[in-house]
Amino acid sequence: MPTSGRRPTSPGGSARTVPVETRIHFQEELSALELQALGGLDMVAESLERTLEAVLHHDVELAGYVIADDDRIDGRYLEVRQGILSLLARQAPVATDLRLIAALLDLIRNFERMGDQCVNISKLVPLVGREPPVHPEIITRIERMMRQAISQVQQCKQAFARRDVELAEDLVRQDDEIDRCNREIFALVLETGDDPDAREWGMTMMLVARQIERVGDNAVDIGEQTAFVVTGEFREFTDASHPDAVPPAIGLSAGPRGE
Amino acid sequence: MPTSGRRPTSPGGSARTVPVETRIHFQEELSALELQALGGLDMVAESLERTLEAVLHHDVELAGYVIADDDRIDGRYLEVRQGILSLLARQAPVATDLRLIAALLDLIRNFERMGDQCVNISKLVPLVGREPPVHPEIITRIERMMRQAISQVQQCKQAFARRDVELAEDLVRQDDEIDRCNREIFALVLETGDDPDAREWGMTMMLVARQIERVGDNAVDIGEQTAFVVTGEFREFTDASHPDAVPPAIGLSAGPRGE
Repeated sequence: MPTSGRRPTSPGGSARTVPVETRIHFQEELSALELQALGGLDMVAESLERTLEAVLHHDVELAGYVIADDDRIDGRYLEVRQGILSLLARQAPVATDLRLIAALLDLIRNFERMGDQCVNISKLVPLVGREPPVHPEIITRIERMMRQAISQVQQCKQAFARRDVELAEDLVRQDDEIDRCNREIFALVLETGDDPDAREWGMTMMLVARQIERVGDNAVDIGEQTAFVVTGEFREFTDASHPDAVPPAIGLSAGPRGE
Repeated sequence: MPTSGRRPTSPGGSARTVPVETRIHFQEELSALELQALGGLDMVAESLERTLEAVLHHDVELAGYVIADDDRIDGRYLEVRQGILSLLARQAPVATDLRLIAALLDLIRNFERMGDQCVNISKLVPLVGREPPVHPEIITRIERMMRQAISQVQQCKQAFARRDVELAEDLVRQDDEIDRCNREIFALVLETGDDPDAREWGMTMMLVARQIERVGDNAVDIGEQTAFVVTGEFREFTDASHPDAVPPAIGLSAGPRGE
């Protein structure tokens, strides 16, 4: 364990004793970092759009673009994380700012993972072949799930930016739609006939659906961080071990949460 | 955005000007928080053991226990997180300690998610029925994956505690075993005959396998945090968008990373 010294905060320090420029500068830096972090969610929404296009049109080239472009999202994550650490090293923030900083550290991890989920889906695109045996009812649900996920990414961004706890909590209700599609896809794949290609395509779509489900979970996580910033209390909107806290869901993997 | 004042760090502050007791106290608190955080990984390893038992013996009661017991893991997460925020609010740490603090915030999120992954698997146990049509080659691989995941949880804990970057990097190699089993299970399920029960059981095991894969990913994440604490540089050991950086893997979803 590193045993290094530390800089003390002035015990009698208060907002009044801090030079005004210092305070303004800190606030400006923190606001800029928040904007950068929220911008990461815009990058993810774009990447999700492209991923959906790639899946719908078996566009291997576009899928390759999504995979390569994830570097930008990773870069944004590293940039904001470094900015936050550098800010913390220079000045001890008060409790309210600390909450925001802790929430931002979680939020950037969430969008970085959403980027990885786009990559994981895009990697599946070339594996289903040029003219895969598309099952219309399955692909319709994949598209619906993905549009829902994109809308949740936009909603969690808005909720966080506005510190809107109600909008953040609504994400759980939104996420039910994704969970429902996910269960329906499982049932449809189960009913797929004996054609091995059709079965493989269906099982691959099941994997795509699971990745989209995780994007939705990440959006709910950001909603939880929103509530934490506002209230100072961290709680899971739905708890993996207490699914009854949300509207009852029936069937396979009802309401699992968590990454 | 909250606009609150903040307490300044003493600009001329250095280790020498901090009262010795203050420094010792800070260090003791941080060490205690690290031990608590690493203890969360022990709780996860236990929960994974029970989850495996529940899957192997279709033990619905034990699965229910795992689900209920996740509250303890969640509690540990909240406890350490609160402790870290409270520590940060009282004193501005120096850069080395900040790295440890940032890494611990990530680590606790990882073990909290591993707990959720145990819950997600345990929820699948009652769905396969009392006497499911077990495919021996599939269940063997599920067991192998799970034992591998448990060993990775122990390894990432050890690597972090010892600040052992080499041991941390070895987690990627370990994780290849999980990825291989995962691909084999996909292929085996694809070959499953037309019996609907056998097919449903196989597809459910595919979902179990994906959850175990995520436990492994979380262990690799903790390995990355270990390297960050030691070197101050954050990098992904394997990058979702650059799978070629790791030993080449062939087939479906080769080397996807990220939660």
